[in-house]
Amino acid sequence: MVYVTRRVHFNAAHRMHNPAWDADTNAATFGPCNNANWHGHNYELEVTVAGTPDPDTGYVLDLARLNRIVQTCILDKVDHKNLNLDVDFMRDVIPSTEHFAIRIWQQLEPQLRPHRLHAIRLYETARNYVEYRGE
Amino acid sequence: MVYVTRRVHFNAAHRMHNPAWDADTNAATFGPCNNANWHGHNYELEVTVAGTPDPDTGYVLDLARLNRIVQTCILDKVDHKNLNLDVDFMRDVIPSTEHFAIRIWQQLEPQLRPHRLHAIRLYETARNYVEYRGE
Amino acid sequence: MVYVTRRVHFNAAHRMHNPAWDADTNAATFGPCNNANWHGHNYELEVTVAGTPDPDTGYVLDLARLNRIVQTCILDKVDHKNLNLDVDFMRDVIPSTEHFAIRIWQQLEPQLRPHRLHAIRLYETARNYVEYRGE
Amino acid sequence: MVYVTRRVHFNAAHRMHNPAWDADTNAATFGPCNNANWHGHNYELEVTVAGTPDPDTGYVLDLARLNRIVQTCILDKVDHKNLNLDVDFMRDVIPSTEHFAIRIWQQLEPQLRPHRLHAIRLYETARNYVEYRGE
Amino acid sequence: MVYVTRRVHFNAAHRMHNPAWDADTNAATFGPCNNANWHGHNYELEVTVAGTPDPDTGYVLDLARLNRIVQTCILDKVDHKNLNLDVDFMRDVIPSTEHFAIRIWQQLEPQLRPHRLHAIRLYETARNYVEYRGE
Amino acid sequence: MVYVTRRVHFNAAHRMHNPAWDADTNAATFGPCNNANWHGHNYELEVTVAGTPDPDTGYVLDLARLNRIVQTCILDKVDHKNLNLDVDFMRDVIPSTEHFAIRIWQQLEPQLRPHRLHAIRLYETARNYVEYRGE
Repeated sequence: MVYVTRRVHFNAAHRMHNPAWDADTNAATFGPCNNANWHGHNYELEVTVAGTPDPDTGYVLDLARLNRIVQTCILDKVDHKNLNLDVDFMRDVIPSTEHFAIRIWQQLEPQLRPHRLHAIRLYETARNYVEYRGE
Repeated sequence: MVYVTRRVHFNAAHRMHNPAWDADTNAATFGPCNNANWHGHNYELEVTVAGTPDPDTGYVLDLARLNRIVQTCILDKVDHKNLNLDVDFMRDVIPSTEHFAIRIWQQLEPQLRPHRLHAIRLYETARNYVEYRGE
Repeated sequence: MVYVTRRVHFNAAHRMHNPAWDADTNAATFGPCNNANWHGHNYELEVTVAGTPDPDTGYVLDLARLNRIVQTCILDKVDHKNLNLDVDFMRDVIPSTEHFAIRIWQQLEPQLRPHRLHAIRLYETARNYVEYRGE
Repeated sequence: MVYVTRRVHFNAAHRMHNPAWDADTNAATFGPCNNANWHGHNYELEVTVAGTPDPDTGYVLDLARLNRIVQTCILDKVDHKNLNLDVDFMRDVIPSTEHFAIRIWQQLEPQLRPHRLHAIRLYETARNYVEYRGE
Repeated sequence: MVYVTRRVHFNAAHRMHNPAWDADTNAATFGPCNNANWHGHNYELEVTVAGTPDPDTGYVLDLARLNRIVQTCILDKVDHKNLNLDVDFMRDVIPSTEHFAIRIWQQLEPQLRPHRLHAIRLYETARNYVEYRGE
Repeated sequence: MVYVTRRVHFNAAHRMHNPAWDADTNAATFGPCNNANWHGHNYELEVTVAGTPDPDTGYVLDLARLNRIVQTCILDKVDHKNLNLDVDFMRDVIPSTEHFAIRIWQQLEPQLRPHRLHAIRLYETARNYVEYRGE
C-alpha cells in the first residue's frame, strides 16, 4: 500500500456567516471572518490516494487522470470564485475549512473509483489546515 | 547601511474591474480575476527599511515601532477586508498588486520617518509578487 | 471526524545535558548540542484537534479558544526562554524534541477538553521534527 | 510512542520507461517523463522512526546513527546519479516515486533495527509526493 | 517604477562536463556533477519585469502574455529535458546555473519588448541560486 | 555580471543586552529578547558573490571553495554556540541581526578575494531578516 499525494492551489473569497443568526451573533461568533464584504485566501489542497503500484507503470494511478478529475470537479468550480455564492457543492453549508474539505471529499471520492481516496488536506493559510479521511 | 525587512501576512478579497469599461471588456481583460462575486488571497507583505545600526541597541530601528505602524496603517485596514470596498487608501484605484504596493508605500513612508523606507514587496501568491522602491 | 491543525512558532535556548553523567560522557553523547553556553532554535509547533464540525459554525472548535490555550499554557512559558532553566513543565527532563513534545501534550490535553487533542508535531529545524499522539 | 522524522535531500536523473513496451506505448503512457535523454529532480526524503525516548538521552534514536545509515544506504547511491542506470537497488524496477519509496524502505528497514522504521515519505516535487509504511 | 515577478518551475537533467578536457580533469573539477549518466534538478525560475502600471488595468504587463512567452521560449524547450542534449539555446555552453540564467535572459529579453526585462533568478536547489540582470 | 548565492543554516543562542545600561533599561529596550537565560534561533545565511562565469567551468566561483570558507570562518564558530559568549568576532558588539550580518561580511570578504562578495542576507526568523552589502 502506497499513499500518493498531489497538491494543487486556488484562491477564493468567502465569509463566515450563519443566516439563521442576527448580525450581532454572527459578528461575535466569527469576528473579522464575518466581514460583510467578504475576504479571501490562497488555498492549498492535497489529495491523497491509497493503492498498490501497477508493476507495468510503477504508478498507483495515472496522475494525469487525477489532475483531470481535480480540475473538473473542484478547481473549475472554486478557483477565483466566491465559496458562499458561486459554488454549487457549497451552497447549503457555512464555508469553514472543515465543511469545505468534507464537500471536496464528497465530490472527488465517487469520481476517483476504483481508486481509493485516502485523505483531503486543505490549507486555508500556512498556519491553519484541516484533514478529512471519510471517517 | 543595513536593510532590515519585516514580513507580515493578511488576507483580503478583491476584484479586478475597471468601472469605465463595459462588462465584456472587463471580462476579456481580467479573465477570472474579474469574477463579479470577488475572489481573494493570502497576501505576504515585506517592509524593508534602510539605515545604520544604533551602536547602543544594534538596531536600525525598533521592530516594535515598525510593527505598530504596519498594524495601524495597513493591517487594521486590509486584513479580512475587501480591497475594492473597505479600504480608504485603495478607493479610487484598480486593486492590482502593483497599485496596492504603491499605496502601501504611500501610507507607510511618512509614518516611518526619520527612518528611510527602502522597499515594499507584496506577494499575491507564492508565484506572483511585486516590489516598489518609491522610484 | 475532521482533524484541525493550528501552527504557531516560538524560539528558545536549550542544551542537551544529563546531570547524572560526567562532562566527557555528555560531550560524547550529545556532541555540539551539549555546548555549555547553550544554543537555540526557532521551533514550529502544530497542534491537531480531532472532532466533528458544529453545524451552526462549521468549526470543530473555536480557533480563538485554541489560540488562547496555546498562548497561556505554552507560548507564554517557552517563547524567548531557556528550556532547561525557565520552563516549569520541563524542569526535570532532558529537553530533547521528543520530551518537549510529550510535555506540551500533557499541558494542552486537559485544557482542551472536551475537545480531543489528536497530535503534537514539533519542528526543531526544518529537517528534524517529532510527532506525539498520546499513545 | 514518539515518531521522529529526519528530512534529507538529493538530486538524480531518471526516465519513466517500460522496456517490455514499444516506443509509442511508452510515450503515450509516460508523456514527457519518458524523454529518451532523461530528466531529473531535487528529491526530499523523510525517514520516520517510531519508538519510546530513552530517559537518559531524551532520544528515540541517535540522529547521528540515523544519518550514517541514510548516508551509506541511500544518499551515497542515489545523489547526483541516474536512477535507471546507476543505482543497484533500483535496477529491475521502473523508477516511479512509488517504487523508489518502497525500495528505500527495503534498504533502510533492516539497517535501522532494533529501531522501528515507521514511514518513508518521498517528494519528487513540492506538489507530488508518496508515503510508504511497509504495509 | 514597479518590479513584477512571475515564478515558474520545471525539471531537467544535466551534467557538468567540459568536452575540451580529459575525464580526470572533468571529475576533479566538477565532482559528482560530472556523473556520466547525468543527474537532475527541479528548477525554479523567477522572471522580473520593470515598468509603470497602466492606469486602466493596474498592470505593468499582462501576466497572460508573460506566461505565454515563458512557456514557448523556455518551458517547452527545457521542461523534462536534458540541458546538454535537448535544448537548442544551450548547445554550445556548459550548463551551469550561471550560463543557463544568461541564456534564458537572451531568449526572453527580445520577446518581452517593449517591456523591460529586469532580472532572471534561477534556483537550482533551495540552497543554490543565481541572478542575472543583463549587466 | 552574475550574482551567485549559497544558503546555509546554523543555530545559536543569544541575548540582547547592553552592559552599559542597568537591568530596567535593558528590559524596557529589548523586551523578551533580553531574557537573562538566553533564547535562540535557527539562522539562515545567504552569501552572494558577484562575478563573470569562467567559460571553462561555467562557474563564477567554485562552490566547494565558498563552502569551505563559510564553514571555517563562520559555521565552525557560530553553529550550536552562544553569540554573546562563544564567538570571537562578536565579542565586543550587541548581537543584533544587523551587527551579526556586518561581522559575517567582515570575516568573509577578505577570504573570498579575488572574488567579490556582494551581499550577506541573514534570516533570524522566517519573518525577520537583514541584508548588508558592504556600503
